[in-house]
Amino acid sequence: MERLTAYKKQFLTYLESQKWPTKPAQLYAPISYILNLGGKRLRPVLTLMSAHAFGRKSESALPAALAVELFHNFTLLHDDIMDEAPLRRGQPTVHTRWDNNVALLSGDALMIASYQALEPYPDSLHSSLTRLLSQTAIAVCEGQQLDMDFETSQGVTEAAYLEMIGLKTAVLIGCALQMGALVGGASLDAAKVIYQFGYALGVAFQIQDDFLDAFGDPKTFGKQVGGDIIENKKTMLFHQAVQLGSNQQQEALLAHFETHPKKPAEKIKVVCDLFETTGAKKACEQKVEDYTTQALQQLKTLAISSEGKSEFEQFAKYLMSRSF
Amino acid sequence: MERLTAYKKQFLTYLESQKWPTKPAQLYAPISYILNLGGKRLRPVLTLMSAHAFGRKSESALPAALAVELFHNFTLLHDDIMDEAPLRRGQPTVHTRWDNNVALLSGDALMIASYQALEPYPDSLHSSLTRLLSQTAIAVCEGQQLDMDFETSQGVTEAAYLEMIGLKTAVLIGCALQMGALVGGASLDAAKVIYQFGYALGVAFQIQDDFLDAFGDPKTFGKQVGGDIIENKKTMLFHQAVQLGSNQQQEALLAHFETHPKKPAEKIKVVCDLFETTGAKKACEQKVEDYTTQALQQLKTLAISSEGKSEFEQFAKYLMSRSF
Repeated sequence: MERLTAYKKQFLTYLESQKWPTKPAQLYAPISYILNLGGKRLRPVLTLMSAHAFGRKSESALPAALAVELFHNFTLLHDDIMDEAPLRRGQPTVHTRWDNNVALLSGDALMIASYQALEPYPDSLHSSLTRLLSQTAIAVCEGQQLDMDFETSQGVTEAAYLEMIGLKTAVLIGCALQMGALVGGASLDAAKVIYQFGYALGVAFQIQDDFLDAFGDPKTFGKQVGGDIIENKKTMLFHQAVQLGSNQQQEALLAHFETHPKKPAEKIKVVCDLFETTGAKKACEQKVEDYTTQALQQLKTLAISSEGKSEFEQFAKYLMSRSF
Repeated sequence: MERLTAYKKQFLTYLESQKWPTKPAQLYAPISYILNLGGKRLRPVLTLMSAHAFGRKSESALPAALAVELFHNFTLLHDDIMDEAPLRRGQPTVHTRWDNNVALLSGDALMIASYQALEPYPDSLHSSLTRLLSQTAIAVCEGQQLDMDFETSQGVTEAAYLEMIGLKTAVLIGCALQMGALVGGASLDAAKVIYQFGYALGVAFQIQDDFLDAFGDPKTFGKQVGGDIIENKKTMLFHQAVQLGSNQQQEALLAHFETHPKKPAEKIKVVCDLFETTGAKKACEQKVEDYTTQALQQLKTLAISSEGKSEFEQFAKYLMSRSF
């Protein structure tokens, strides 16, 4: 945990040292706003940790870490428009505080800035990191589109859900680690393994996010608790409840997932109860553990220092234990 | 003209050879749609022409030309959302045919695809082209923000207007040419000169676009004629009319630029008349000629073949003569 805090601090110092233009204000103020909302900075921490694990100073991976964090914040700006989300990290979203056009355009600028963050690297490394960023970025867009498609689709399977969260969330965790590996001069094979570690970790992370959306502490969760239930999102909790529930429970759940009540508190309560009584809550916790174990398996084959491995393990355990 | 047509044909063959994924359909169908709406393909033609002028086969610049055209189409997708534009090239805009979310996300994917279009180049060239694309892209965002700011701002000067169209339009024309120069192995100095040529040409191009918005042929213009007048955009016609008109004409013009009539035909007619009687129409035509001459001056210092110069001159004259 101490190392995680140190990486986060190192990243925040670098982030704060970035000088954004002040004009046009409507373009750049929202960028400063979202970057200053805080957040766990998990992705840039992974980039720094990965460069260190492959034998370089974490400092050398700061530009790559910044690119990953800027890209992540770009996705938040645009996703929040599409999802009409009122809150982000407990504060008004950019499109709520300004308007949709401002969030759209400053999101565009933020995506471009994520490419620009990679410019301090020499040509060859700059070129490979840019390719990786684009490959990841297009996958994230595909994931977001699938996520929206699934909202109005009835036949979403658990496999389709896993593909969607893989694209929307896991590839960026994989990318964050792989960027650190590339900066750290890792072999192509090692970079692939670390990507797979990140991918599995990302799946665990997203399933836990789904879990916290229903069962998280409203004080610390940052988003609206029950938001997925309100939007009838078929998350892992839903898939497990459908698979594990009795016919009666299944019918009750499916009926609730076709409603859009104006005052959703009662619906959230009933659905959460179904998630508990069907055993979906417990099954979800197990899935998080399984994917985390799967991630950690990848590390075994990796020729990095035991210190590096230990840092990755600590990170995985920290993720699994989080209740924020 | 024959050479221009040949470059356009070469580009279109390359564009059509691009295989876009088919799924998720809502992400990729809008990209195919907007790319197939036609258009003059001025920017990619300039990229091919520039590589050829610097002594390479135009073919070698096809990936760069594609990047420029994809980026341009990304800006159309997002600008049309922000401007609530109903038509693009005479067809429904993407956000009208699908919805805002679809246009937003497929626009994001198109921007990423413009970076990916540069990937066929070797690392060093890939790196410089990517840097140039990002630098241009961020300028275009700033220009779009200024354009939106100006809609609700009273004190927009001609100088501010010129800065805005420089960012929103001219830098991408400059970028298109500079990319061709980089692919063609031009010196840094020559690449800068060709950028300046493109920048001045871009300013001329945008002023003529403003002109055509009021005086273009509705059959061939592709957008709504009078659209700028409806939105009270302070284009070059407006600035010239304010500078050249009598006190009475100025007052009449300014009064009209504060109204938003439901049936704008009468307003469009009166404002167009004012553009004529104040001499703004003629002054605007002169400005287009002046900036084109300024662009052509840049060419004189350039150590390229007379064939290359002649192609650029033909292009400039073609632009100046267009009434589409």
